Amino acid sequence: MPPPEPTSPAFADDLAANHFDIAGADLLVGGIPVRELAARYGTPLFIYDGGVIRRSYRTLAETLSGFARIHYSIKANPAAAVIRLLYEEGAGVEIASLGEYRAARAAGVKPGDILFAGPAKGARELETVVSGGIGEIHLESFEEIARLTAIAARLNATIPVSIRVNPVASAQGGAMRMGGKPAPFGFDEETIGEVISKVQSAPGLDLRGVHLFAGTQILDEAVLLAQWRHGIDVAGRVAAIAGHPLKTIDLGGGLGIPYFAGDGQLDLAKLSAGLPGLRQQLKSDPLLADARIVVEPGRFLAGPAGIYVAGINAAKVSRGTRFLITDGGMHHHLAASGNLGQIIKRDYPIVAPARMNATGRFPATIVGPLCTPLDTLARKAEMPDLGAGDLIAVLQSGAYGRTASPVGFLSHPLPTEILIESGKIEVIHLEQDSQAGARH
Amino acid sequence: MPPPEPTSPAFADDLAANHFDIAGADLLVGGIPVRELAARYGTPLFIYDGGVIRRSYRTLAETLSGFARIHYSIKANPAAAVIRLLYEEGAGVEIASLGEYRAARAAGVKPGDILFAGPAKGARELETVVSGGIGEIHLESFEEIARLTAIAARLNATIPVSIRVNPVASAQGGAMRMGGKPAPFGFDEETIGEVISKVQSAPGLDLRGVHLFAGTQILDEAVLLAQWRHGIDVAGRVAAIAGHPLKTIDLGGGLGIPYFAGDGQLDLAKLSAGLPGLRQQLKSDPLLADARIVVEPGRFLAGPAGIYVAGINAAKVSRGTRFLITDGGMHHHLAASGNLGQIIKRDYPIVAPARMNATGRFPATIVGPLCTPLDTLARKAEMPDLGAGDLIAVLQSGAYGRTASPVGFLSHPLPTEILIESGKIEVIHLEQDSQAGARH
Repeated sequence: MPPPEPTSPAFADDLAANHFDIAGADLLVGGIPVRELAARYGTPLFIYDGGVIRRSYRTLAETLSGFARIHYSIKANPAAAVIRLLYEEGAGVEIASLGEYRAARAAGVKPGDILFAGPAKGARELETVVSGGIGEIHLESFEEIARLTAIAARLNATIPVSIRVNPVASAQGGAMRMGGKPAPFGFDEETIGEVISKVQSAPGLDLRGVHLFAGTQILDEAVLLAQWRHGIDVAGRVAAIAGHPLKTIDLGGGLGIPYFAGDGQLDLAKLSAGLPGLRQQLKSDPLLADARIVVEPGRFLAGPAGIYVAGINAAKVSRGTRFLITDGGMHHHLAASGNLGQIIKRDYPIVAPARMNATGRFPATIVGPLCTPLDTLARKAEMPDLGAGDLIAVLQSGAYGRTASPVGFLSHPLPTEILIESGKIEVIHLEQDSQAGARH
Repeated sequence: MPPPEPTSPAFADDLAANHFDIAGADLLVGGIPVRELAARYGTPLFIYDGGVIRRSYRTLAETLSGFARIHYSIKANPAAAVIRLLYEEGAGVEIASLGEYRAARAAGVKPGDILFAGPAKGARELETVVSGGIGEIHLESFEEIARLTAIAARLNATIPVSIRVNPVASAQGGAMRMGGKPAPFGFDEETIGEVISKVQSAPGLDLRGVHLFAGTQILDEAVLLAQWRHGIDVAGRVAAIAGHPLKTIDLGGGLGIPYFAGDGQLDLAKLSAGLPGLRQQLKSDPLLADARIVVEPGRFLAGPAGIYVAGINAAKVSRGTRFLITDGGMHHHLAASGNLGQIIKRDYPIVAPARMNATGRFPATIVGPLCTPLDTLARKAEMPDLGAGDLIAVLQSGAYGRTASPVGFLSHPLPTEILIESGKIEVIHLEQDSQAGARH
């Protein structure tokens, strides 16, 4: 295995400067120094910048310019404050569980704006969601068709459904591609005829369209466009079998953000330039011409807006390696520790939010408080000369942070979570046990 | 990469038969069919067998026959019911956070029976623990020495401490070896002189001994004995520098259990046979002769006693691969999904707890309800012909299960947790949203 590459401080610094403000030594989020927020709320602390979330949404909406409606995939960050803000902006939401349904409803989202996908939807959650109202349910198994048919009969309801399709082949590119291979998600395209006939013969199920999901964390707009084109092809084949126009084509998520030095960034201008071709493709098929197109990004909207702030409890040099030992770690941020699906562990971008103007940089291994070598946030970060009482901030932490992490591991306090917009702070979760000013 | 090896059904069946009872089609835990427990409490469900925990403790205590006191490392499973049961048996506990301190105290553990380790102990948690009483605190940084010195002065207390040592070289063997390399844990042995002099000059700190931790999940008793011998060597060197007898030598945990087909099992008879040599080693050094030896297993005590039961929501064949899609997954059992430190993903042992006498076996990929390929519990398990409504049970799930998992991921219900002993059921956590009989 090659030695780990150091995180380029330029990469982390550039990201910080792109998304937030820097004033002297301080990183500001929503106009407030992170140092002040850490002193007030304690560490560890997730901070989300509402302005950055809105900016990501607006940039994407402008890029799409009416081509597709954006449904926020709330699995990325189900905090009500985040959902509410994106809903205000005009997004619908995409959910994958009854818990997410409740979170969306509690955040004020109307039932018609909610799409429900997921490979193992149970009878109880389906019934609860149908009773409460839902925009569309994406069918993923014959068992679900049977469950929904029974629920529709029992509730005397008509349930809007789409079929999730596992395409015969996937367009190339993107991490964790789905499609063309065996998969637990949706129905193999080869079997779609049987699925459509089951749905069409089910009284109470209203077949509206298709749902595809071919990749995640895609950073190349050409790949994304190819996936979308491929999705429209599949939709056309499904519509032909169904023999009626589709009302919805959900092209999935997959819009990536840069996490590691060397990662590119989606070129939204080029993405935009590719859309007329797709519009043409849709228009040329009468069964697709009037379909509403949906994309469902999660991390693209929430990821860049969040930082995870931890306090350094101890610093030591062990056999030539400098360790910064923080009060935060893998129990709050599994992805940053490299234990959420990464094959090769690379360092998330990390800055010292109260030492932004420090000049010297020293390689450091940043670890959390758990008694396991797995609890490592960075293997070789180029950091200022930090010690106990200083802060670190993991960038790109607005998505797949707290809720994607084993927060109960070793029974440490939960992280406090706040969202800031225009200087106004909304507390999402306040942890009384946070180490506010208690490190010394 | 080689194709995944199928889980040997013999391995899973043997484990099930070793730890639990089987009656006809049913796996019984604590004398009750898992099928009945799933119907009553719903799925997903963690079930712990108190009798199996006691048996593991007693077997180990008998093996050690007074050589060392057993402190249960509660990070493995901090449920009060589990702690209480092991404390009744005679175990002390080892904790790694204020949260674990509270869990131990709430379970009735006396302060003097608690040892506190961890690389990032904060001022507030140290002060709370010192105020409440603690058996010993294991020092891991100079910052901690300073914090405890201040706390001792403020509270006018004498604080019993040991020094955690990162040995100059580690004995060989075991996964995730610690020692001989740079590490954030404890003090490098090379610097012990300075550490001892700091501790000895601190009024209020009572230096009692050393703590070593050289490995985890060790399945070879010869390796474990070598680690312990090595630990006693280090203890002797520390005692010589300190210039007084040690009261405690904590040799750490590391006792493994088999998870994968082909894994061996610690041979406790051979382990026992190696102890007279260690006793002799201790006796020959007057500074160690009266030390109390401590070992701190976690998974060895709790792991075999627990199973994780999930219900199958859908079954499908996609392009030749059979998928069983369950209501449980990586959000409850990160380790079984291969995302908790495993380099090579191998399948945990899984059985069908209501189909134990089924004859035909078919390879199946068992996945959870999350919308990600990461949520895979088994890549190629040899299972009976199962479908929606059937149950699966992941064995060896009593340690590093719920609390080591991202339970909030996709906002699914928490797992219910129960402990059974002699037919008596203690509910640890009851989830109202569990899918009791609600899968159809």
